[in-house]
Amino acid sequence: MKLIIGNKAYSSWSLRGWLACRQSGLPFEEVVVPLYDDAWDRRREGDEFAPSSGKVPILWDGDAVVWDSLAIVDYLADKVGREPFWPADEAARAMARSMAAEMHSSFAALRRKHTMNVRQVYPPVAPDDDVRADLTRIFELWAQARARFGSGGDFLFGEFGAADIMFAPVCTRIATYSLPTPRFAAAYVLAVLQHPFMQDWIAGAQEEEWVIEKFEQPVT
Amino acid sequence: MKLIIGNKAYSSWSLRGWLACRQSGLPFEEVVVPLYDDAWDRRREGDEFAPSSGKVPILWDGDAVVWDSLAIVDYLADKVGREPFWPADEAARAMARSMAAEMHSSFAALRRKHTMNVRQVYPPVAPDDDVRADLTRIFELWAQARARFGSGGDFLFGEFGAADIMFAPVCTRIATYSLPTPRFAAAYVLAVLQHPFMQDWIAGAQEEEWVIEKFEQPVT
Repeated sequence: MKLIIGNKAYSSWSLRGWLACRQSGLPFEEVVVPLYDDAWDRRREGDEFAPSSGKVPILWDGDAVVWDSLAIVDYLADKVGREPFWPADEAARAMARSMAAEMHSSFAALRRKHTMNVRQVYPPVAPDDDVRADLTRIFELWAQARARFGSGGDFLFGEFGAADIMFAPVCTRIATYSLPTPRFAAAYVLAVLQHPFMQDWIAGAQEEEWVIEKFEQPVT
Repeated sequence: MKLIIGNKAYSSWSLRGWLACRQSGLPFEEVVVPLYDDAWDRRREGDEFAPSSGKVPILWDGDAVVWDSLAIVDYLADKVGREPFWPADEAARAMARSMAAEMHSSFAALRRKHTMNVRQVYPPVAPDDDVRADLTRIFELWAQARARFGSGGDFLFGEFGAADIMFAPVCTRIATYSLPTPRFAAAYVLAVLQHPFMQDWIAGAQEEEWVIEKFEQPVT
């Protein structure tokens, strides 16, 4: 398998696809393609980008190509079995799947106003109301998952899985933007950031040489 | 199982969840809750709406609750097996999963500017550029799926499945707004609209008594 991703520093959807590949336990080649620099528009016209019209992440696996992070999760779950990704319990899995899908389609304000950058810690600011509303909903979901199904571990449904993968870039934002966070959620955020896969990703981002100015501005 | 949905006339995400339930072959009770009328805000505060903070569709299945249409597809696939929803072939399934996920997160212009109303045919208008771009991408995806994997039937991957379920509300929009459509796509749109489940849904919409003014205005 080969996974095409954007800069580890900035590309939150790439992080999700990459975590899914790591979580599958399957070997994969990783191709980092710097986003947004001068060559980006030319680069994304290449054949390997064609299926997604230029978006990342893209997973190539023989004849199969998967170009969306949630689809990558379930493509890999089809391949290696559901167990590393989704809870075995039906009610837990119903909630995990719903939360992952809600993350996939929602929380636009948080995503737009606090773009991911795992290399930079921003000066704390009061989030806008729409970001606050996103966070309120996210914390409500986390609280319910942890309370109902999280007793077997530090993650949303106990063990690390697909729901954690989908919310991982929210965790980095909470840390790097110092977003207001209830105590239980802070413990969860820390567990995600300290997960070995996340540590590997962040270390990889530190080693990247590309710096894209628009993602390096402090929030004012 | 019990599925809570909005008005069949207007609620495109409900249509997806409902088609998924029909496709599963499992019996389910259907609860239609009229959206957007005066009682809507009160109604959605009820316990049955709590997990989704008021959005539809919501599938209740014993202790399990699923509140997103794509999550409903895969929850049901977990329950009855993948076969009614996703292609058996790995490359086809990779594409079907990617397309379903892209529909889940994208095509905002088409969705916003051409809201679904399966009861009304609108006067033809030239779509805006952003809608045109959405349609171009959608037709490109449909063409590839049909060409590569559609030979076994009239649908994207041959037999009717999850990808068709996700794009079904696009098909109704193309028909009711007379959006410009290449010939191969028109044949596919017709196949979807004539599918027995779609015929049942549209018949149900005709029987609804609720009329919400803002969804009944002709596009100008």
